[in-house]
Amino acid sequence: MAEITIDNARTIIASTIAKGQEMGLKPLSVVVLDAGGHVKAFEREDGAAPGRFAIAHGKAYGCVMLGMTGTAQMARAEQQAYFMNAVNGAFGGQVVPVPGGVIVRDNDGAVIGAVGVTGDTSDNDLEAALAGIAAAGLKGDG
Amino acid sequence: MAEITIDNARTIIASTIAKGQEMGLKPLSVVVLDAGGHVKAFEREDGAAPGRFAIAHGKAYGCVMLGMTGTAQMARAEQQAYFMNAVNGAFGGQVVPVPGGVIVRDNDGAVIGAVGVTGDTSDNDLEAALAGIAAAGLKGDG
Amino acid sequence: MAEITIDNARTIIASTIAKGQEMGLKPLSVVVLDAGGHVKAFEREDGAAPGRFAIAHGKAYGCVMLGMTGTAQMARAEQQAYFMNAVNGAFGGQVVPVPGGVIVRDNDGAVIGAVGVTGDTSDNDLEAALAGIAAAGLKGDG
Amino acid sequence: MAEITIDNARTIIASTIAKGQEMGLKPLSVVVLDAGGHVKAFEREDGAAPGRFAIAHGKAYGCVMLGMTGTAQMARAEQQAYFMNAVNGAFGGQVVPVPGGVIVRDNDGAVIGAVGVTGDTSDNDLEAALAGIAAAGLKGDG
Repeated sequence: MAEITIDNARTIIASTIAKGQEMGLKPLSVVVLDAGGHVKAFEREDGAAPGRFAIAHGKAYGCVMLGMTGTAQMARAEQQAYFMNAVNGAFGGQVVPVPGGVIVRDNDGAVIGAVGVTGDTSDNDLEAALAGIAAAGLKGDG
Repeated sequence: MAEITIDNARTIIASTIAKGQEMGLKPLSVVVLDAGGHVKAFEREDGAAPGRFAIAHGKAYGCVMLGMTGTAQMARAEQQAYFMNAVNGAFGGQVVPVPGGVIVRDNDGAVIGAVGVTGDTSDNDLEAALAGIAAAGLKGDG
Repeated sequence: MAEITIDNARTIIASTIAKGQEMGLKPLSVVVLDAGGHVKAFEREDGAAPGRFAIAHGKAYGCVMLGMTGTAQMARAEQQAYFMNAVNGAFGGQVVPVPGGVIVRDNDGAVIGAVGVTGDTSDNDLEAALAGIAAAGLKGDG
Repeated sequence: MAEITIDNARTIIASTIAKGQEMGLKPLSVVVLDAGGHVKAFEREDGAAPGRFAIAHGKAYGCVMLGMTGTAQMARAEQQAYFMNAVNGAFGGQVVPVPGGVIVRDNDGAVIGAVGVTGDTSDNDLEAALAGIAAAGLKGDG
């Protein structure tokens, strides 16, 4: 299995933020986690609210730990809210089940990490994240 | 009261995983808890998401601590979500109330432990768990 | 980087327990974590106290998260107790800094997981763990 | 009061890592917090243990929240360990009181954030952090 590198993470973060600026989004916060759910890199743009680390982290963390995209987590939460609540109990409240959490895969499809983006609408967050991951030559599953 | 043994647990886990492979399920994670709700044995198949221990554990833990099957817990959660949320507050968020959590009973009907299976749909998780428990000569109540 | 497989984990656990029985140790509990600190497999022998999962986990978890062996963690705790207390605060109290926590490396020296053994003296726990890891053809650093 | 900017944070992180590489240190992890103790940016070099975010964060967090440098916190912990334990109770275990936690001040001496560095010895972590902060034209108090 490939590992997500700090060079990958730097490209993902810089390209996600650049995409957000090009789209005219509010200031973004972007986290990159490794395949174990541990923080590799993070940036919070000037003007973003101070609590954005936890939101970005929560979007990405659920992707790694459950192997589900943010979009899939949201669908499950809408169908079966008590299940996602229970999942969050099991993970110490660290899962934020909405779009903007994206699984990162290597060329063989193995999960090598996740990206979490927050700051604008969930759909815009997701669009910026996918652009950032593509810029690093990786596959995003959001 | 009989106690669930490590030999029981090994048979349950191996047979649950074999059943899942035979059914063509996604990679499974299987935990066996004793009558006190404490982990006796666990395996996570290659390819399962890293957070699956917490989900498997949460399915089994509620079975032992509440004396309710995963199926019964789900029914209660759907009728009275706030109640299962409150239960989870009392149990530190460790209860995941869906099928795949199975009470294990001895021949007299006494609870001697529980099994939690996660990885595919809740219904498929449950079917594999019941096969694993039966392979150990025990009675599963899911 | 290689990944620790469920086959590796099964061999490590079976061989650690066999070694403990050969050495005449008390009943052992053995956990195998992956490179992200997530549980891959666990067994608690009949006769071991119910809380042994948390101790085995805590020995292995610190190895992965800090990149330090259980022996090195104990040395640091003895020199600078407040530091290991603070580390434990940062990791939610999950680190048990004594021998019996062993880093598992691949042939290139990369950390691919950790093993935690508890039940007898820390030194005996470590000896059994190293035998189990060697039986899987891997390198243990304890 | 000036605020620490994302440009400041990028320079601090890049320069701290460059300094560590120049000094021949082990792979570093570097966090920059704002004046409210909230994460602004973070990087973990390839090869660093996965748990390093929590340690870097803990070094910087105590600096902001207590207005004490990592060096001063260590002195207090060595004199009065129970006090720093109690502080950690109040702060949810998030304070790691050793060198490598550095207060960042503006030209008027106001605290605008903190940097936390971990990976090598505490003294080397501190030296790299001070170099990174100086490279951003700011004053580090370690």
